[in-house]
Amino acid sequence: MDAPRYILHYAPDNASLVIRLALEELAVPYRTHLVDRHQGGQRAPAHLALNPNGLIPALETPEGAMFETGAILLWLADRHGGLAPSPDSPDRGDLLKWLFYLSNTLHPALRRLFYPGSYIGDDPAHQARLQTETRQNILSHLKILEAHWRPTAEPTVLDLYLAPMLRWVQIYPQDSDRSWFDLASFPALHHVASRLESRASTRTAQAAEGLGPTPFTAPQAPNPPEGSAL
Amino acid sequence: MDAPRYILHYAPDNASLVIRLALEELAVPYRTHLVDRHQGGQRAPAHLALNPNGLIPALETPEGAMFETGAILLWLADRHGGLAPSPDSPDRGDLLKWLFYLSNTLHPALRRLFYPGSYIGDDPAHQARLQTETRQNILSHLKILEAHWRPTAEPTVLDLYLAPMLRWVQIYPQDSDRSWFDLASFPALHHVASRLESRASTRTAQAAEGLGPTPFTAPQAPNPPEGSAL
Repeated sequence: MDAPRYILHYAPDNASLVIRLALEELAVPYRTHLVDRHQGGQRAPAHLALNPNGLIPALETPEGAMFETGAILLWLADRHGGLAPSPDSPDRGDLLKWLFYLSNTLHPALRRLFYPGSYIGDDPAHQARLQTETRQNILSHLKILEAHWRPTAEPTVLDLYLAPMLRWVQIYPQDSDRSWFDLASFPALHHVASRLESRASTRTAQAAEGLGPTPFTAPQAPNPPEGSAL
Repeated sequence: MDAPRYILHYAPDNASLVIRLALEELAVPYRTHLVDRHQGGQRAPAHLALNPNGLIPALETPEGAMFETGAILLWLADRHGGLAPSPDSPDRGDLLKWLFYLSNTLHPALRRLFYPGSYIGDDPAHQARLQTETRQNILSHLKILEAHWRPTAEPTVLDLYLAPMLRWVQIYPQDSDRSWFDLASFPALHHVASRLESRASTRTAQAAEGLGPTPFTAPQAPNPPEGSAL
């Protein structure tokens, strides 16, 4: 077995989960480094040297540190020849436009829902107002994805990015209203989630991050063997 | 001269400006189609058939309609072999991580500043609160870009995406406070803006969209020959 070329800086059930799934699907050797969010590890100098934005994931590679979930996905797919149409494929454009959509529309909406204080400040009433509007934004984004999702024979980076986001909207923020979103109302997206659950990549991620059974279709709060998801 | 392969669906001084600059820099034939924002043209069925999100730009190509500014930039760069390191270049990762950062962090922050109602609803006090916090978010994003920007011999898609955003934060929303941002305090970013102003691509965009002199370093409200920027 090759020595790992990659080190994934991760926290359980964080966006790093998307990259773990990609590394598993591509069957490339990697090891992980836990970022301790309880200790503010994502803001520690060692992590900021990898990702100056203080976010997880970061991926150490022989060509330098990578960050941004969408960028790492696309870079890994192109380097290892899987999970996305090649750059000269006629299907490349479709993949790119939806990858950027997931990255700049759906994912930031999840961040507004989970971390409203970063966008609107400390007032709980302001935060609640932003979250209420954001739930409607997310539903409208998911309806667009549902209407335009094109199933592929095998999962692509789009599946690996979307399924964890479908997980997170079902369980975060903890102790908040769950009634606004029902994955069963989105059959195309439900299929993305359920298909990924049958893959070995998911089983590895479940064990490594304590994701429990049915982590995408009917998720529960994680119970990670190391570190904390919050 | 070849018949245009591409049709850029644009509105003056909208995100489509980024794609116009790329098409000009790559010297590929294209024609434009004005989306009349005063008539809600971006929500009209013909436009939604190109971009179901109702956003500008959309680019008609022989391989189908493209949308998402970052996706179109990367697709054009790879198709025409310019403005970005090739997929197998050791510099590719750096380009991708900052392209996604511009797309999913800086650009969405500009949208929150310009269209706060889409994120927080109709209450003017809530909108003002979101805008206040967003200005701080934008400054913090620009500081990270300033600290980590790596100058290249020639402009890349990163320059073409960033310079218009530097324009927009200086002039939009109209009639709002301007004191919070001074491009002169960001010398690396100022260089991006000023270098692009010397390019023929900018002169074409200035004429087509009424951008005035110094559109990136010291911008003024546009005076487009057709359509409206607002």
